[in-house]
Amino acid sequence: MLKSTVEISDAEHASSVEPVGVAVVGLGYWGPNLLRVLGDNLDVSVRWICDLDPERLGKYRRRHPGARATTRLERVLADPAVDAVVIATPVDTHYNLAARVLEAGKHVFVEKPLAPSSELADELARIAAERGRILMCGHTFLYSPPVRAIKRMISEGKLGDIYFISSSRVNLGLHQRDVSVIWDLGPHDFSILLYWLSEMPTSVRAIGRDSIVKGTADVAFVTMTFGSGIIANIELSWLAPSKLRRTVLVGSERMAIYDDGAPEPVRLFDRGVVYRDPETFGEYHLSYRSGDVISPKIDSYEPLGLEVADFVGAIRSGEKMEYHTAIARSVVRLVEAADRSLREGGREITVEPDMGENNLTAARGLAVN
Amino acid sequence: MLKSTVEISDAEHASSVEPVGVAVVGLGYWGPNLLRVLGDNLDVSVRWICDLDPERLGKYRRRHPGARATTRLERVLADPAVDAVVIATPVDTHYNLAARVLEAGKHVFVEKPLAPSSELADELARIAAERGRILMCGHTFLYSPPVRAIKRMISEGKLGDIYFISSSRVNLGLHQRDVSVIWDLGPHDFSILLYWLSEMPTSVRAIGRDSIVKGTADVAFVTMTFGSGIIANIELSWLAPSKLRRTVLVGSERMAIYDDGAPEPVRLFDRGVVYRDPETFGEYHLSYRSGDVISPKIDSYEPLGLEVADFVGAIRSGEKMEYHTAIARSVVRLVEAADRSLREGGREITVEPDMGENNLTAARGLAVN
Amino acid sequence: MLKSTVEISDAEHASSVEPVGVAVVGLGYWGPNLLRVLGDNLDVSVRWICDLDPERLGKYRRRHPGARATTRLERVLADPAVDAVVIATPVDTHYNLAARVLEAGKHVFVEKPLAPSSELADELARIAAERGRILMCGHTFLYSPPVRAIKRMISEGKLGDIYFISSSRVNLGLHQRDVSVIWDLGPHDFSILLYWLSEMPTSVRAIGRDSIVKGTADVAFVTMTFGSGIIANIELSWLAPSKLRRTVLVGSERMAIYDDGAPEPVRLFDRGVVYRDPETFGEYHLSYRSGDVISPKIDSYEPLGLEVADFVGAIRSGEKMEYHTAIARSVVRLVEAADRSLREGGREITVEPDMGENNLTAARGLAVN
Amino acid sequence: MLKSTVEISDAEHASSVEPVGVAVVGLGYWGPNLLRVLGDNLDVSVRWICDLDPERLGKYRRRHPGARATTRLERVLADPAVDAVVIATPVDTHYNLAARVLEAGKHVFVEKPLAPSSELADELARIAAERGRILMCGHTFLYSPPVRAIKRMISEGKLGDIYFISSSRVNLGLHQRDVSVIWDLGPHDFSILLYWLSEMPTSVRAIGRDSIVKGTADVAFVTMTFGSGIIANIELSWLAPSKLRRTVLVGSERMAIYDDGAPEPVRLFDRGVVYRDPETFGEYHLSYRSGDVISPKIDSYEPLGLEVADFVGAIRSGEKMEYHTAIARSVVRLVEAADRSLREGGREITVEPDMGENNLTAARGLAVN
Repeated sequence: MLKSTVEISDAEHASSVEPVGVAVVGLGYWGPNLLRVLGDNLDVSVRWICDLDPERLGKYRRRHPGARATTRLERVLADPAVDAVVIATPVDTHYNLAARVLEAGKHVFVEKPLAPSSELADELARIAAERGRILMCGHTFLYSPPVRAIKRMISEGKLGDIYFISSSRVNLGLHQRDVSVIWDLGPHDFSILLYWLSEMPTSVRAIGRDSIVKGTADVAFVTMTFGSGIIANIELSWLAPSKLRRTVLVGSERMAIYDDGAPEPVRLFDRGVVYRDPETFGEYHLSYRSGDVISPKIDSYEPLGLEVADFVGAIRSGEKMEYHTAIARSVVRLVEAADRSLREGGREITVEPDMGENNLTAARGLAVN
Repeated sequence: MLKSTVEISDAEHASSVEPVGVAVVGLGYWGPNLLRVLGDNLDVSVRWICDLDPERLGKYRRRHPGARATTRLERVLADPAVDAVVIATPVDTHYNLAARVLEAGKHVFVEKPLAPSSELADELARIAAERGRILMCGHTFLYSPPVRAIKRMISEGKLGDIYFISSSRVNLGLHQRDVSVIWDLGPHDFSILLYWLSEMPTSVRAIGRDSIVKGTADVAFVTMTFGSGIIANIELSWLAPSKLRRTVLVGSERMAIYDDGAPEPVRLFDRGVVYRDPETFGEYHLSYRSGDVISPKIDSYEPLGLEVADFVGAIRSGEKMEYHTAIARSVVRLVEAADRSLREGGREITVEPDMGENNLTAARGLAVN
Repeated sequence: MLKSTVEISDAEHASSVEPVGVAVVGLGYWGPNLLRVLGDNLDVSVRWICDLDPERLGKYRRRHPGARATTRLERVLADPAVDAVVIATPVDTHYNLAARVLEAGKHVFVEKPLAPSSELADELARIAAERGRILMCGHTFLYSPPVRAIKRMISEGKLGDIYFISSSRVNLGLHQRDVSVIWDLGPHDFSILLYWLSEMPTSVRAIGRDSIVKGTADVAFVTMTFGSGIIANIELSWLAPSKLRRTVLVGSERMAIYDDGAPEPVRLFDRGVVYRDPETFGEYHLSYRSGDVISPKIDSYEPLGLEVADFVGAIRSGEKMEYHTAIARSVVRLVEAADRSLREGGREITVEPDMGENNLTAARGLAVN
Repeated sequence: MLKSTVEISDAEHASSVEPVGVAVVGLGYWGPNLLRVLGDNLDVSVRWICDLDPERLGKYRRRHPGARATTRLERVLADPAVDAVVIATPVDTHYNLAARVLEAGKHVFVEKPLAPSSELADELARIAAERGRILMCGHTFLYSPPVRAIKRMISEGKLGDIYFISSSRVNLGLHQRDVSVIWDLGPHDFSILLYWLSEMPTSVRAIGRDSIVKGTADVAFVTMTFGSGIIANIELSWLAPSKLRRTVLVGSERMAIYDDGAPEPVRLFDRGVVYRDPETFGEYHLSYRSGDVISPKIDSYEPLGLEVADFVGAIRSGEKMEYHTAIARSVVRLVEAADRSLREGGREITVEPDMGENNLTAARGLAVN
């Protein structure tokens, strides 16, 4: 038990590898979480924090005294010690800021959704490819243990063919200024569905209402149909009596419930109906199976930490993160379509599958594992 | 503690009022429940049970030895001791059977939905009016204590203006032969919504899928818009990992959850968002309220017993039950519209409000209390 | 589809085997359930219903017109068509009534607890053995699907060695006149534990309180220790904010929760702690396992129906139901000990294992399967 | 919207009041939480972190570069800039470390339980009083919003007279080396009960088992009786299938459930039984009330932050925190009694009320508000 008495000096252990220099832009709602996780990552050195509000800068400098603080992005971009910039600002600034970062030759991580239009999202992807820099979008749910557990179940055929998906993502939430609930909450479900199904919907419809602030939908019911026959219904709302983030997947072999935040976030139901094609006219044979319910043990880690580590790892390894870019662009395309349907009273919007599906399909091998 | 020793004779107490003579037609899934409740009602004498299957007749005669059993409806209709007939047969037989009963001058109670088309439902209403007989449809949820508790909350303004309603009615349920899940489960939600809102939707859309039996939709997502601005989303499915009968109502003053079968079936949330119109350009003031949650004490009785008692009471009192007829006709109209939208790939179907709304409005004063 | 038109005659199919003639004594709270289940059992003919209250007799005769009704047990016992009597009267009448039935040479089924003292319970067992008649006690939980599922898990070693059991059986319940909550609710848990563990406790302690009616404990915390090392804590109360019937079993291999009435009444947790004995002084190695949770599919049937069928089956087969008699006697012994400890301020009461354990052990092979 | 471009300098705003200088001793399981909260408190300057493990010191210095790090307490105590020391070390070091801090003339905050014996706890209180320094113990639950909400309900008479309390505090938790589950988890419930009831129990019993590590009880059922008639049953265990921290309070007017960590942590049930004393022999009148259930809105803040602020506030104001010292001493006394009963096979241990109750009573006026 004898321990030598020591006083820790200020000198840290010299690491053989230089940490990745990162700047965080935007310290509003989500930026501080990114800042915290980056600060805890031993491969990262947070060089700058950047926000328009000096008070916020002061508050977070106190906790990250090693970082410099500025209200001007130029200062950040001019610093050669900055390898990558993490952007957590309002969506309508994403394109402009990210493009500047990429043009400055730095990697960029943009909070979701990637851009306020699919045109701008595509343009960002083009710039990133041209500059050979990583363009990653913060679809953190792709790193969530339960979301990944369900991805594995689907890949292993445990659910069989998926018939339909029904999802609710509601809470008494903060209204966003100027963007509908579809732009705010939709990216979560859209990214999860694209990740699970590796398939773009062919059509999207949305019915909603601007209950509180005229012109800003705060509730929307989105229905999507897929080429494979799958249908999905997604309820999104900032107006709900209690928080609910729950997705039900019904497949030919089994059914699953993903309840984010529940003690058992994934439940697998060995239940189903089997239909045997009638041999003679008039027969009608259905057999029902009602078996065990399993709550598999789900890993427990903070998705954001893993996501940031993945970004940093890609910077080191030179990987392009094309799968993430494809997902992010497809998400913007879906949000755009749903929002348009909403504004046009629920009209069916056909989704061009070209870009999205091809990239998704091509990128399947790269799928987050 | 002294009790005289008695032996109960077969002679019953003579009642001053003759009981209402009733026949039950159809002893499949639901008929036996009606038979049981009628048997327990002291104002009722079950005269006949009628079914095509002699085995069923044998089984239920054992429990109701006072009733006569037959496979032929004529026998029932020819009996002057039969005041009313309760029909619990497949929906495509409702019109024919109910019309025969009314033509025979007897009151009729038909299981929901009233008829397989709004045309036939209207025709039944016409015959009933012409003959001066009661035409009541078994929308039992209108007698359910939690449904009534929420009706009261709405009437008293506790929810304020209702913004939207979101409902799920799913289970691993028995597929119906030949009818979609909308015809099977939809009448429950439609009748409840019409009762609560006293308003017909103006348009209906439904997206669904025939996952198991080709041509028979087993899942459907129905969205409805109302003239008052309310929107409603209803998930109906026979394919679900667990039973759920849950409706969320979001209003300007409060929100409510009705979870049928839960220990606390109604929960009232003193939560909401208030928007104050900005006085100067650029202001944007929202205040959030997150208060107590109340689970009001809900009466506990069997709705079916009360419903049957209401039917019997109307026979005695001469009341016409027009409100029930209006609800029943409107339900068929909605089911028809939703089913048509489903078959036409989600196309918006406009609902003619004329009949439904007027009758509902006119009948408000008669509303079930 | 062609069905011949038939009219069902009063003549029933002649059965080759004469049904067992049964009488039901006591139509208060529980008796009507027994009567209903007996009435539905095709092997049974309910010959008599017997109660001190003529009104009750009238009410139930209406539903069971084939049975005769009386306030006098002699009438029942004198009828040679009565093979067995089912007793559902207050506990302090059990001995007297059951003894009379046995002396009359008839089988008897007595509601739990078997008798108001272990002395009288033993005496009943003696008379039954002497007369060669069945003495069965209505410990219905032994026929409950989840209770049996857990018995199987224990037998198959799925839980490993059981460390402890913690149970709550509480509700806002009806106070019994003159008996404590231990006499009222305790028999449920005691019978379940004896069935699961096939072992009598060696000591019992109970702390309680007569919160509402002086002299009648309405809450009790009972702790029991077993020779095998198992400890059990049982909370019993008529004063609780919500109904809870929940038992947790913690074993060396797995843990289980039995929540009576929940949609998933049995949950098996693949969780535990393993301790490896330290090889050198000072080591201390524990490994924690946190695995899947499984809700096994549980059969769905009414336990009371199976219990009554078992009783009737034993009458036919000549089986003596000794296991049931042993459980019933051990339950009375435990209730007696717990109630005594309660009245003596929580003093430890040593339980004589002789009778109970030996019988339980001997009867293990006969265990309900 | 115009904001001037600024660069934040290292110079902080000069505060008119000097922050309280604090040292944190022990950076194992809980110490880092205290360190984080102290670091966020603008009234505090963390001067030192102290632990025997240099690696830990290195890790936390990285996050708190303004603090000095040492393995030697002398260094801390010799620093005049240190006003108070926060101790989060194993319980058997509490007395020695806290006494040294007090003798050095500094205030001390000790993690719970205050000391490994009531003798040593009393001695610490004596030293603190003699030196005029604050001795506060980290009973954080006294700052928990739901615990305080229930305290208010009790004070306002909403529950009426409390009949009994039933609590479960279980999880699949970390076994402590050398201390039983009573020493580990008991202080939570004991402190909460003393706070709510302002009354010491008169007797304590505990039955438990050392299921995994011989000699270290990992499950215990503790029953306590109070002079006022209240009884309490507390289940404590490191071996449980799922985490549960749930306390039920049953009173003459209402019942309450406190479920720590649930979305609605406090639920108030307007349920009860009223007994009217019979006027004539043989009467027995109980009336049952089953009313609404209310989940009051509960404040949302981190209790630890408030607790630390209270400690710092007392240092500034000169308050002695006698109520906290009294609670902390009473908790040790109860743990000691329960642990002794456990080791003596459940024997009833009488608790000397003198110190505890008097102090609690005297301190009622000082009660945390």
